[in-house]
Amino acid sequence: MEKKDFLYEGKAKKIYATSEENKVIVYYKDDATAFNAQKKGSVESKGEMNNKITTLIFQYLEKNKIPTHYIETLNEREQLVEKVSIVPLEMVVRNYVAGSMAKRLGLEEGAQCPETVFDICYKKDELGDPLINDFHAVLLNAATHEELKEMYQLTDKINELLKDLFLKADLILADFKIEFGKNKDGKIILADEISPDTCRLWDKDTGKKLDKDRFRRDLGEVSEAYIEVYNRLQKVLN
Amino acid sequence: MEKKDFLYEGKAKKIYATSEENKVIVYYKDDATAFNAQKKGSVESKGEMNNKITTLIFQYLEKNKIPTHYIETLNEREQLVEKVSIVPLEMVVRNYVAGSMAKRLGLEEGAQCPETVFDICYKKDELGDPLINDFHAVLLNAATHEELKEMYQLTDKINELLKDLFLKADLILADFKIEFGKNKDGKIILADEISPDTCRLWDKDTGKKLDKDRFRRDLGEVSEAYIEVYNRLQKVLN
Ligand SMILES: Nc1ncnc2c1ncn2[C@@H]1O[C@H](COP(=O)(O)OP(=O)(O)OP(=O)(O)O)[C@@H](O)[C@H]1O
Ligand SMILES: Nc1ncnc2c1ncn2[C@@H]1O[C@H](COP(=O)(O)OP(=O)(O)OP(=O)(O)O)[C@@H](O)[C@H]1O
Ligand SMILES: [Mg+2]
Ligand SMILES: [Mg+2]
Repeated sequence: MEKKDFLYEGKAKKIYATSEENKVIVYYKDDATAFNAQKKGSVESKGEMNNKITTLIFQYLEKNKIPTHYIETLNEREQLVEKVSIVPLEMVVRNYVAGSMAKRLGLEEGAQCPETVFDICYKKDELGDPLINDFHAVLLNAATHEELKEMYQLTDKINELLKDLFLKADLILADFKIEFGKNKDGKIILADEISPDTCRLWDKDTGKKLDKDRFRRDLGEVSEAYIEVYNRLQKVLN
Repeated sequence: MEKKDFLYEGKAKKIYATSEENKVIVYYKDDATAFNAQKKGSVESKGEMNNKITTLIFQYLEKNKIPTHYIETLNEREQLVEKVSIVPLEMVVRNYVAGSMAKRLGLEEGAQCPETVFDICYKKDELGDPLINDFHAVLLNAATHEELKEMYQLTDKINELLKDLFLKADLILADFKIEFGKNKDGKIILADEISPDTCRLWDKDTGKKLDKDRFRRDLGEVSEAYIEVYNRLQKVLN
């Protein structure tokens, strides 16, 4: 697979064209941002770890019949994936109270949600990726009600699969966000990444945070956390 | 009905006990606030007009089989209503893009929504009455999924009835918020008020704003707008 033109870049990854129209290469950077990019930095070997963690997770999800953009991992920082048109929504799942939801609702971090909580945010940096609801998503033409239903169902399945997986690695999946895209046939598939950048992962026994909150909140040992998550998943999945 | 102890007061109304345990008196003030009470003022005769407008509207809704807290209007500023325990949610309906939704979604004000938009906000002044979704409402114990379903259905019916009513008064009902409460039997009924404080009303022909946006945005002729809405409704309903 030949790497061609640089297409575009986000805060954590770069996207390159390939010799095949419907495939792109994702390059994972070490760049880290938080709070709508007000905080910026770099985390050594994060790109490598997120590439490897996303690889393990997407392979696991594919094995469990979740349609994803994943094709193959090319090297330490690059993956070949199906090119999609990203649905401009972040699908957020919350098993525990944390982060922006804790703040919005005036709740302490740390409690388990009696029922899984699903949020959707509008992917629009200028607006700060605001929380919206289904009616807003449809009004914005981000998705139809049917597409939302499909994405919620997939998200729920993915959550069940990931909770299981992480628990085997002695990690609590407190919350995470995923992105879906439409491939050339109009099919909705899981895209983007699943990594400590996009999940809150708490050590089952000590509660230690092993995710991007270490960067957001200046908790130290950031690289180490990403490496630890990769090592634990590797063990479980082999 | 004897007016007894002052119970509590909000930004626009005061609540008094009566000689009957399950009935309270609502007193409508001229006080006006906006932007989570950062802007404060007073609008002459607003209390009187909102009492009269709410009276007309709640009587109209009752006639159309919507269960409400309304019992009777006592005088120019007071209503006797069923005492309820307020569900801490604002149910918002949007027929046109305006206000906080326009801002949140980065849309211009003024377009008609192809499909009615429903929002819910958590009634919590300290948090700025944030937009939430159904999962949050249940997590907060503000309502159960069944209660939410019932409130959405009632809200939808109320919207259809109000759109009709206001159109007869040459007014477009752009959006509005309502509050529900549970009465002594645990039944969910419409409570609070429906007035130019809680609705966006645009003249059908000129687009002139005849609601609290005149106060919020310093457009002048604020009292006049409330009086105009009352006069138009009065005409239509007699
Ligand atoms: N399979 C795919 N095809 C096309 N684009 C993709 C695919 N998977 C992910 N992307 C997009 O690649 C871009 C770069 O990813 P990155 O995570 O760096 O972006 P970001 O900083 O989070 O910005 P954004 O707010 O756009 O998501 C994102 O817009 C992401 O949605
Ligand atoms: N039937 C009722 N029984 C009991 N309380 C009621 C009833 N109808 C309305 N209320 C409550 O009366 C209070 C006073 O109303 P007002 O509109 O002034 O409050 P507010 O400033 O909007 O504050 P809040 O954020 O509490 O609604 C509100 O808390 C409202 O929910
Ligand atoms: Mg991203
Ligand atoms: Mg009020």
